[in-house]
Amino acid sequence: MSDSPAIEGLKQALRRLPGVGPKSAQRMAFHLLARDRDGARQIAEALRLALERVGHCQRCNDFSEDEICPLCASPRRDHALLCVVESPADLSSIEQSGAYHGNYFVLMGRLSPLDGIGPDEIGIHRLEALLDEGRVKEIILATNLTVEGEATAHYISELAHARNIRATRIAYGVPVGGELEYTDRGTLARALTGRRDV
Amino acid sequence: MSDSPAIEGLKQALRRLPGVGPKSAQRMAFHLLARDRDGARQIAEALRLALERVGHCQRCNDFSEDEICPLCASPRRDHALLCVVESPADLSSIEQSGAYHGNYFVLMGRLSPLDGIGPDEIGIHRLEALLDEGRVKEIILATNLTVEGEATAHYISELAHARNIRATRIAYGVPVGGELEYTDRGTLARALTGRRDV
Repeated sequence: MSDSPAIEGLKQALRRLPGVGPKSAQRMAFHLLARDRDGARQIAEALRLALERVGHCQRCNDFSEDEICPLCASPRRDHALLCVVESPADLSSIEQSGAYHGNYFVLMGRLSPLDGIGPDEIGIHRLEALLDEGRVKEIILATNLTVEGEATAHYISELAHARNIRATRIAYGVPVGGELEYTDRGTLARALTGRRDV
Repeated sequence: MSDSPAIEGLKQALRRLPGVGPKSAQRMAFHLLARDRDGARQIAEALRLALERVGHCQRCNDFSEDEICPLCASPRRDHALLCVVESPADLSSIEQSGAYHGNYFVLMGRLSPLDGIGPDEIGIHRLEALLDEGRVKEIILATNLTVEGEATAHYISELAHARNIRATRIAYGVPVGGELEYTDRGTLARALTGRRDV
């Protein structure tokens, strides 16, 4: 590929995708231009459309094309339950489990002071406003089991306690179908401390 | 991520990128919408520009923004040498080696009858026209060392021989810095059959 500015620009642009380095970007640019110009048009159009239409739900902060997302607007959800997740992908995983029928709050991140991500950056004010409405009786903390995720869960649990709202953390332990022999130490430790009477 | 049609459309579109499955597409869509809307705009614009500007060089078939690419137009290249490669990325690798100063012909593929890719699909007519001009004295076959690449090289070598043009194949063997102990059998076999007097 000789140095066409348009191709160079496309390679540079594709590198902004997460997980795409110079080699992948070149492969993608080549593939789109040589074999899938329709695909390239489709991607450009989908990006334009998504940028134009997708904002955030004013209640749960999830991506939404409406002011209030269908999930928050649904009368069939239990508004007394609020599950706090880090990302829309996490929300989507929990929805797919079919085990939850409450509402969500999507932080779009986690507290990470070293990266300059404080309470303001993860929309804590909006979460507090939601809690202050008084409908939420239990807040389920479903942030990830990382240092930052744990710190975020702890921070939010204090906000809940200050308002006399019950705060719970989802259970961590051996995954369903997992074998003890192949389970890492951290998970096993969690499974033991989280043991229950049967 | 609840089912917003615009996000769904973006995820579907991103899956047209090579090597991108449903999980990566979701991660990319999320990343762009949540954290890098500028990047999304940049990608859309770069795609639009590349689609509009990038065509193929009328001589070498490489991507080009001009009728004749800078490489083909350059008076400093040796027009008696023609290196045939499968893709613009291969051309780019050879250029970066700095060891070649002739011209190129880019097949944009390889013969692969099972996939319906015959001589017409890899621009053999255009290559023949180039050979018929009479300037090319040697054609260097730099297709990959796969079944299809070898068949393509063989096919083109016959076109060259029919015109009394010398056809050569680039050398395959142990890579520079490679250790015999860790070299695969196929490469070793090639290195042995391709041995030279010293």
